[in-house]
Amino acid sequence: AVRSMSATARKSLTIGLIPADGIGREVIPAAKQAILALGSDLPKTEFVELLAGFEYFKRTGTALPDETVEILKYDCDCALFGAVSSPSKKVVGYSSPIVALRKELDLYANIRPVISVRGNEKPSVDLVVVRENTECLYIKQEELTVGPNGKEARATRLITERASRRIGQIAFELASKRPRKHLTVIHKSNVLSVTDGLFRETVRAVPLLPEVNGRYNDVTVMEQLVDSAVYRLFREPQIFDVMVAPNLYGDIISDAAAALVGSLGLVPSINAGDDFVMGEPVHGSAPDIAGQSIANPLASIRSAALMLRHLGYTKGADRLDIAVDQVIREGQVLTPDLGGKSKTEEVVEAVLKKI
Amino acid sequence: AVRSMSATARKSLTIGLIPADGIGREVIPAAKQAILALGSDLPKTEFVELLAGFEYFKRTGTALPDETVEILKYDCDCALFGAVSSPSKKVVGYSSPIVALRKELDLYANIRPVISVRGNEKPSVDLVVVRENTECLYIKQEELTVGPNGKEARATRLITERASRRIGQIAFELASKRPRKHLTVIHKSNVLSVTDGLFRETVRAVPLLPEVNGRYNDVTVMEQLVDSAVYRLFREPQIFDVMVAPNLYGDIISDAAAALVGSLGLVPSINAGDDFVMGEPVHGSAPDIAGQSIANPLASIRSAALMLRHLGYTKGADRLDIAVDQVIREGQVLTPDLGGKSKTEEVVEAVLKKI
Ligand SMILES: CC(C)[C@H](C(=O)O)[C@@H](O)C(=O)O
Ligand SMILES: CC(C)[C@H](C(=O)O)[C@@H](O)C(=O)O
Repeated sequence: AVRSMSATARKSLTIGLIPADGIGREVIPAAKQAILALGSDLPKTEFVELLAGFEYFKRTGTALPDETVEILKYDCDCALFGAVSSPSKKVVGYSSPIVALRKELDLYANIRPVISVRGNEKPSVDLVVVRENTECLYIKQEELTVGPNGKEARATRLITERASRRIGQIAFELASKRPRKHLTVIHKSNVLSVTDGLFRETVRAVPLLPEVNGRYNDVTVMEQLVDSAVYRLFREPQIFDVMVAPNLYGDIISDAAAALVGSLGLVPSINAGDDFVMGEPVHGSAPDIAGQSIANPLASIRSAALMLRHLGYTKGADRLDIAVDQVIREGQVLTPDLGGKSKTEEVVEAVLKKI
Repeated sequence: AVRSMSATARKSLTIGLIPADGIGREVIPAAKQAILALGSDLPKTEFVELLAGFEYFKRTGTALPDETVEILKYDCDCALFGAVSSPSKKVVGYSSPIVALRKELDLYANIRPVISVRGNEKPSVDLVVVRENTECLYIKQEELTVGPNGKEARATRLITERASRRIGQIAFELASKRPRKHLTVIHKSNVLSVTDGLFRETVRAVPLLPEVNGRYNDVTVMEQLVDSAVYRLFREPQIFDVMVAPNLYGDIISDAAAALVGSLGLVPSINAGDDFVMGEPVHGSAPDIAGQSIANPLASIRSAALMLRHLGYTKGADRLDIAVDQVIREGQVLTPDLGGKSKTEEVVEAVLKKI
């Protein structure tokens, strides 16, 4: 299972930065500044700027250069990814670099905590989406044929016992450490009895694994069909604590949950594997506001905090999170997505002052 | 394309009733009473009670008897379906009868209008989800294999040009008749470039079909990735007018939209094909409240109205809709899901009085 790694062993920290497209290029530098402000709470820290993205594809014909993957694999301890733009038309040869990175680095757990901060959200939300990050429809096995009635396209949705078990383990572990100790398994096994049936059964069987040793006995488990999970998220989000889902449902559910806390611009994530972790704000590249210096940097800074926490730098992570929470609560320096009038840099400055 | 059929040609009307499971057995009789109250606005009307559902499966080993399908096909002009329960564990041989019925009767368009009525919802919602109803992951082609790392399950997601075109036609037709004339195409082509790419391109090309003859030139088209569509539905539902989506996204999005108008208990749908239409409340069988006479009958009555409207009985449909709207607006006689204390029958009585 993914474990928070021990920070003590590390003499230095090398962080890959992959801003990629759109506002990714504005929020990743913000996260870098925030990390730098932590000073001696981290070992000697180096940053490596790495290329990827749809813009990069348009210039070079590749969205994720091999060099980026290799530097991440061999030289970096962790990374921060910005956001990728989606082509507005079909583009031959293009494939999403974030999906490829998750796969190449086997970052099988996408962990997305969604928490109300301002306290005026009703009802208040405090949940974590644990999204399987390597399979489902994201394996990108698709084919196009031409039949008597025209084109036919098929995609394969893969659900394996192995991937369902390891994501289930992450989810139970997380749930067992939270006050409410509650896990909701998201699926659509009333239609996909074989694939989602396997996901559901495998996740539910995690507490019975020999190595678990009764550790999850106090975790309560509920199930929810994905359609009704989205419905209930809107209606009574307080019923959810940890939600575990196959890849695509997790993608949809985390956006739904993000809508409940004011802005996608607040929601962080990590893509975690057994020996690598990559922070990534949940928001996209937002081409409509890119280049205007009004992107919300908080999801990116929070993603840095999540990443550092995962690496064992609890104190540094806490300092970032507390600073971000204070800025949100005070409500004086916020970007337009949160109803404020401040620029990205002003929000970064406000956070830096609190760190 | 699905067309509203001409009502004048019909001397009598035979309506199949398939209550199926849970509160389906409470809300379908309610719809029947409402239809009966229309009297001479309809031709001589007969009802045929038909069997299907998970409960029926538990008794007989089949969820959808051939007889039900045959009577629908050969003896009925239209039908009303209640709801099916989902097995809480894997059940060998069980397959959802509603999915089978949509397929068997080629009811390729699932049309789900979601509208705020009370006027106190902010922001107010007035949209229609047009969901492709026969393919995507709903074709139920799944297989299970055992590999070196354990079980592996695969499902096929099918998107055809033919089905995408015909659902696109329904969506454009609908959009062109609404005041805002706006259509949003839902997909996830940043990941599923082949299948969702085909869906998106085919739908977008509908206005160029020769038979369209410029009729859709004033329909504005937007696209939205499914995850961000759900986010925006929560944040700014007023931007949506008609939404067209492949099967599974449509399933999720219609539940999300339903959450915005107060209750799933209000949202109707029709499953429409070229020569058959089946009304169906969007809510499920709600085992937690089944048998308590507190199920909200309004989605079912509205589904009857949608079905009748589709068949050309505009006056009857209007009478049902107006009666339901009045009951909701007055707010005196409502079931608990809407914050009321009334029983199903009391709500039905209130509606009947207004018809
Ligand atoms: C950009 C896209 C491929 C990605 C996904 O679907 O995983 C994004 O929506 C996310 O949630 O990280
Ligand atoms: C019961 C289930 C198979 C069905 C679906 O997924 O289509 C339901 O959720 C619906 O929306 O009608």
